[in-house]
Amino acid sequence: MAVSYEETGRQKRAQQAASIPQEWRLREIPPVTDVVNALDFIRKSALLSPKELEITETTDADVLLEKLASKKLSAVDVITAFSKRAALAHQLTTCCTEMFFDEALETAKALDEHLEKTGRTIGPLHGLPVSIKDQFDVKGVDSSIGWVGLTGKPSAGDSYPARIFRQLGAVLYVKSNIPQSMMMSDSYNHVFGQCVNPLNRNLISGGSSGGEGSLVSARASILGLGSDIGGSIRIPAGLCGLYGLNPTFGRQPYQPKGTRQDIVRPVAGPLASSLSTVETYMSALASAKPWERDPHIVPVPWRTELCTSAGKLRIGYVIDDGFVKVQPPAARAVREVVERLRAAGHDVLEWDASSHAHCYQLWEKAILSDGGEACRKLCELSGEPLVQGMLVGTEKDLLTSTQLHQLNLDKFEYERVYLERWADANLDALIMPVTPWVGYKPWTWVKSHQYVGYTSIWNFVNYAALTIPVTTVDVDKDQPDHEWLTHKPRNPSDEFNWKQYDPELVKGMPVGVQVVGGKFGDEKAIAVAKVIQELLK
Amino acid sequence: MAVSYEETGRQKRAQQAASIPQEWRLREIPPVTDVVNALDFIRKSALLSPKELEITETTDADVLLEKLASKKLSAVDVITAFSKRAALAHQLTTCCTEMFFDEALETAKALDEHLEKTGRTIGPLHGLPVSIKDQFDVKGVDSSIGWVGLTGKPSAGDSYPARIFRQLGAVLYVKSNIPQSMMMSDSYNHVFGQCVNPLNRNLISGGSSGGEGSLVSARASILGLGSDIGGSIRIPAGLCGLYGLNPTFGRQPYQPKGTRQDIVRPVAGPLASSLSTVETYMSALASAKPWERDPHIVPVPWRTELCTSAGKLRIGYVIDDGFVKVQPPAARAVREVVERLRAAGHDVLEWDASSHAHCYQLWEKAILSDGGEACRKLCELSGEPLVQGMLVGTEKDLLTSTQLHQLNLDKFEYERVYLERWADANLDALIMPVTPWVGYKPWTWVKSHQYVGYTSIWNFVNYAALTIPVTTVDVDKDQPDHEWLTHKPRNPSDEFNWKQYDPELVKGMPVGVQVVGGKFGDEKAIAVAKVIQELLK
Repeated sequence: MAVSYEETGRQKRAQQAASIPQEWRLREIPPVTDVVNALDFIRKSALLSPKELEITETTDADVLLEKLASKKLSAVDVITAFSKRAALAHQLTTCCTEMFFDEALETAKALDEHLEKTGRTIGPLHGLPVSIKDQFDVKGVDSSIGWVGLTGKPSAGDSYPARIFRQLGAVLYVKSNIPQSMMMSDSYNHVFGQCVNPLNRNLISGGSSGGEGSLVSARASILGLGSDIGGSIRIPAGLCGLYGLNPTFGRQPYQPKGTRQDIVRPVAGPLASSLSTVETYMSALASAKPWERDPHIVPVPWRTELCTSAGKLRIGYVIDDGFVKVQPPAARAVREVVERLRAAGHDVLEWDASSHAHCYQLWEKAILSDGGEACRKLCELSGEPLVQGMLVGTEKDLLTSTQLHQLNLDKFEYERVYLERWADANLDALIMPVTPWVGYKPWTWVKSHQYVGYTSIWNFVNYAALTIPVTTVDVDKDQPDHEWLTHKPRNPSDEFNWKQYDPELVKGMPVGVQVVGGKFGDEKAIAVAKVIQELLK
Repeated sequence: MAVSYEETGRQKRAQQAASIPQEWRLREIPPVTDVVNALDFIRKSALLSPKELEITETTDADVLLEKLASKKLSAVDVITAFSKRAALAHQLTTCCTEMFFDEALETAKALDEHLEKTGRTIGPLHGLPVSIKDQFDVKGVDSSIGWVGLTGKPSAGDSYPARIFRQLGAVLYVKSNIPQSMMMSDSYNHVFGQCVNPLNRNLISGGSSGGEGSLVSARASILGLGSDIGGSIRIPAGLCGLYGLNPTFGRQPYQPKGTRQDIVRPVAGPLASSLSTVETYMSALASAKPWERDPHIVPVPWRTELCTSAGKLRIGYVIDDGFVKVQPPAARAVREVVERLRAAGHDVLEWDASSHAHCYQLWEKAILSDGGEACRKLCELSGEPLVQGMLVGTEKDLLTSTQLHQLNLDKFEYERVYLERWADANLDALIMPVTPWVGYKPWTWVKSHQYVGYTSIWNFVNYAALTIPVTTVDVDKDQPDHEWLTHKPRNPSDEFNWKQYDPELVKGMPVGVQVVGGKFGDEKAIAVAKVIQELLK
């Protein structure tokens, strides 16, 4: 008799639970009514020694890397600390899919031996633990990507992103949770269940790199690799108070899997608790010359000299793209950044985002263009139902090949016009909200008449966009003002977003902004983020 | 009453003829029985003054540019000489579509005035005449691209490639002939008729940049811009004894027009009589930073330092890709290059091309994937028939969007494996034939069971590939040998190619090879070509 999808999911979760060593298991997983903040809980956990706590509380990868290279810390010390903390974080937030702590420990031992024997590190990320989104194949463990039908099929080899990490000396130890289809901003699937935010377990960590957001925010990972086609790195980074870079397509290896549309291409990119870790990773990655192995990568080296800016900046900003009005804390975050920049003497100008709604239509058309066929086939593997409310096409969205060709042309034209405008404006960067909302409970997003236009625009035109944390929700400062209260909803997405705002629900939660560096402006985004970071101090 | 397509074509040709000043017209166009070699005829023409002959016989753009910049020659002198010569060449080979000599003269006058007034050139190509393939919009003239239904619709503005040329100081004066659909290696269409080879008017100049091949070979252009999706620059360059670069996609602006497949992307690139002109152009182009305006271009500057090589090279070569055996002169050209390289102490190894036939299947699948719809619609505009035998799909070739997605995946995988192999082999370049044939009469190619696998492979994997002239057909050296005579045809394409070989037909015609520099190896291809050129002296 065929096993039900629920039963297969249960079996997979049982295997998953068994991959956590007995001594790292919580006797009882505290209910959210007892423990809202998982990060606080972990910080007080007796499981982590003071040394382990110190290691894992480090947010700057360079600090750990220096200690590893100089043998002040062993790779075994470091991976043990992060493995323990990931096990804890997972039990509290469901952030992981695969945990392979034994293998990671073996890798760390080998790194320590290599350093001991040769006096040299393996590479620029020697001994650094790295978490990786479930979709990237890691030899020996599943890439089920939240599909029941893909469980129990361990990858025969590493994906290229995983391979590069090992080549650079990093240690892989966990894969992280995602939503079914990866096309929603809430990381739920029928295999692993609901991932939540370690800062407030009542709320989601976003998606689709929601597991990474959760892991990194819980300091259970110092560097996570996510992926982004419409905001999937930047949205979790924003909700979890992190830095998250959507790199320009062509700089960071990815591994296309499955027959998806090829009009808007996903990118992989880092999530981290510090900006310097993002920079360290991007620089290390380029040192591996990924363009020699991945046909989508172009030989643009990492230009460290562009990662700092001393002079006067020219910055555009967007607070409202005219389609969905952003909730008060998200608008305040942009305003605060703009005010600081202006006060520091930089050129700041409002950027016309009125074409973004049209771009969103094109983006959505591309995303839905297979009419949902890929997801339908994945559901059929196990009989699991499709989660309703995700950005997945139905038969009416299916495009013919001629329609796809036309869409490619329309995309090129939109990109061309935007690029000319960007070049003519001579911008260093653009500051804008990440999402029009600042926190949701699980299963809210799927009812939201999904709109990810604040992030998807940059996938569509392929610009580097970096989420940075700016502030937290302040119940006083972020009370709905007259403008908000009298807002006339423009469309169902706007109406939902407007009605949903509740400062009490999200109080204290982080709020970020996007720093958009332009095409191949990854370094520029970092440079401007450094300036902002300094001004916000 | 509707005008027939034949009549519209006649009218367009009459307008075209009228665009040649009376005094530049041949009293009578000599039949091919009287004048086989148009180049010789032009060189003896009284129309060109000794000075004009000297100007147009210059093949190194740097020489002309120096004279222009130092006012030894005026831009008016130069454009007048090339305009006259293009008018002559066109009358003998049908190489042009649009001739706008008056406008070019005005542009040249303005350049001269600018230089006189400011003491400075407009840009690095100041005063250089440049011919451009018909598909690229030039303000005020048609881009009919060989379709009767597209005549009489002057472009409202310049395409970006044309705009860059003007920005760099170049002077546009003619657009060049192509085949209907641009998907054949023989430049014939119902608007302008049959383009032939100036070195032997009985033979074709190839396609689809056949007009450029003809113009440049007749020294009626010093630099032509063609385009290539399967060999359309390199094949005419080979047949006409020229240098022709298929750049890596992402370096040279292009202007996508019409709803074509987007899996294999066409590139624009130069044809010239000298290698230095190719290099000068590529370097000048990059100085315009096209990545700031064209979303398909990546910020990889032109790396002059990679354009020369002093050390030992590692060179692969292919003489037979296993699908179509190349005719004796084309095989000899590769062998001669290989022997010289080996004798000079370079590492030379045979490269396994056995996967190329599979690549050709994928390439063809992409090219035909719209089921011929785009061409069908273009035919309907005027009622003209589709030329049979071109690489244009029929309804059975139409792919669904899911099939297109799968093809994208298959392409990525082919590219990935090839790139890994290339990196592991540590090659500087690969030497191989351009086409398996060395010369055809008009209308032969359409019966050939088209195979452009020797060139299309590099579009598919997106490597820089440069055609260079190596030798000419020698009736003695290139007599079919025992191996050729006893060859067992492998397939209809191979059989056609084998049966077609006739040394008498093609004697004296140029034979080139491709120098494949790899992905973003445009500079490398030039460096290796320089070494070969030196060894062949």
